[in-house]
Amino acid sequence: MRSRIPYVDTIARYLVKRKGKQIRPLLVLLSAQICGGISERTYRGAALVEILHTATLIHDDVVDGADTRRGIASINAVWKNKIAVLMGDYLYAKGLLLSLDHDDFHFLQIISTAVKRMSEGEIHQIAKSRQLDIDEETYIKIIGDKTASLLSTCCEIGAASATSDRSLHERMRLFGEQLGMSFQIRDDLLDYVGKKSITGKPTGLDLSEKKLTLPMIHALANAPRREARHVLGLIKDGAKSRKALQEVAEFVSHHGGIEYAKQKCEHYAAIARETLAPFADSPDKTALTNFIAFVVERAK
Amino acid sequence: MRSRIPYVDTIARYLVKRKGKQIRPLLVLLSAQICGGISERTYRGAALVEILHTATLIHDDVVDGADTRRGIASINAVWKNKIAVLMGDYLYAKGLLLSLDHDDFHFLQIISTAVKRMSEGEIHQIAKSRQLDIDEETYIKIIGDKTASLLSTCCEIGAASATSDRSLHERMRLFGEQLGMSFQIRDDLLDYVGKKSITGKPTGLDLSEKKLTLPMIHALANAPRREARHVLGLIKDGAKSRKALQEVAEFVSHHGGIEYAKQKCEHYAAIARETLAPFADSPDKTALTNFIAFVVERAK
Repeated sequence: MRSRIPYVDTIARYLVKRKGKQIRPLLVLLSAQICGGISERTYRGAALVEILHTATLIHDDVVDGADTRRGIASINAVWKNKIAVLMGDYLYAKGLLLSLDHDDFHFLQIISTAVKRMSEGEIHQIAKSRQLDIDEETYIKIIGDKTASLLSTCCEIGAASATSDRSLHERMRLFGEQLGMSFQIRDDLLDYVGKKSITGKPTGLDLSEKKLTLPMIHALANAPRREARHVLGLIKDGAKSRKALQEVAEFVSHHGGIEYAKQKCEHYAAIARETLAPFADSPDKTALTNFIAFVVERAK
Repeated sequence: MRSRIPYVDTIARYLVKRKGKQIRPLLVLLSAQICGGISERTYRGAALVEILHTATLIHDDVVDGADTRRGIASINAVWKNKIAVLMGDYLYAKGLLLSLDHDDFHFLQIISTAVKRMSEGEIHQIAKSRQLDIDEETYIKIIGDKTASLLSTCCEIGAASATSDRSLHERMRLFGEQLGMSFQIRDDLLDYVGKKSITGKPTGLDLSEKKLTLPMIHALANAPRREARHVLGLIKDGAKSRKALQEVAEFVSHHGGIEYAKQKCEHYAAIARETLAPFADSPDKTALTNFIAFVVERAK
């Protein structure tokens, strides 16, 4: 992460200090381990996904005007937007060069497809939020693009670093894709049932961006027309008051949105578990299975 | 540029409609022509640099809050910042995939180094603007990184698409680097002598970002201490009034900053011309020579 430019170097060191959960590099390592073993290439793959993920987060924080990230001030908060956008671009280039310098072209192919899907998925979601007309099928496609794509990339890269057996690459890619679906549905569910809130809102729910996720989509599809139209009206106004948010949350719960999202989260987790079935029992398999359990059960 | 996501497709079509001067792809084509001839790879290289350049401009406009680009509304003005940042990332990924799908790994190596240098150079310049302590040597390094790097990339990619003779790649890279230096010095000079202004400011000069460029750097180094300190004070306040700007512009002109920058611009142009000397006379050589003349003489 070093740079000849002292200022860039300072920011890079700031980034490296706070590491986050490192879920993505962990998936690369476990996937390599279960497919034959960790090598130098595996570590480069793990670094690559974490660098690109970090670049994405830096850009996200600029766009959302977020002041904190991983418990400390965000790059845009400390150095302003301009530096943050440039630092994201710098990290993309660094990740690229890391792979190019070691002829990891296959990694790049896998990950560029993910980056393309991620930006497409995010743009798709924003477009749908503006129109407030998302259905379950579209939601599934969006979270596949914006979240599952990168987790499946981690697993595929891990496998590709350990074996040339293409069927194993494909199996791990599928595993990561299902895990990612489960992950994002859980994330969206936590907006409704989580305890993130310190603002006094009922659940930490924030509808100011008008993002409709699975619990809401299901409730809207199952509630009587008139009731659904009323709730959509509240969301159109951003559901800013505590009362409006409470009403929305109760609507979702009453019409089975929470239960349905839990089922769907478990559904994808079950497919992920099945995908691992052909592997012989091993500590790596146990670790990946525990990973699935963590995703389904996590409360934040 | 097509995408499965209709919204992404709409924005991509909007981008393609307004093409700009296309200086960079033009350089790729001319460089290929003079090194042996244009091929399919040349066109892919030209597309790659233009896609990446466009991605950079989209991110620039977000950060600068610019409302227009190439005479029409900017992406952030029409679709907001979030979409614009994502669309920039999408274009990076598309450019990457274009090269990966055709095994143009060498292109990627060349261009990733440029993207890294570009972001480093921009960050370096912002850091120096905040401290107001830039000298000529640092300025030369910064414009090499932020501008010359991409123009040299264009020329090197053009050459690499036409011949495997590494000495020609290197010659064209050097040509592009000198051309880029000349280009940026001219650009910075135009802030002082150009006629861009429609705001009533003396020259179109805008010092609100406190960016010190060659004409000013030279004047500061050659003026009496007390005078220089006074002008730095005006710049520190952003030189917002018409009177302050006029005073700054006269200071630069009086202490030879304009003349010096003109000489330096011509200096790099002359090296660029020399770099072309070994090529036999041809319409391509004439075109590249005219290109240098355009860069040195352009008035906007």
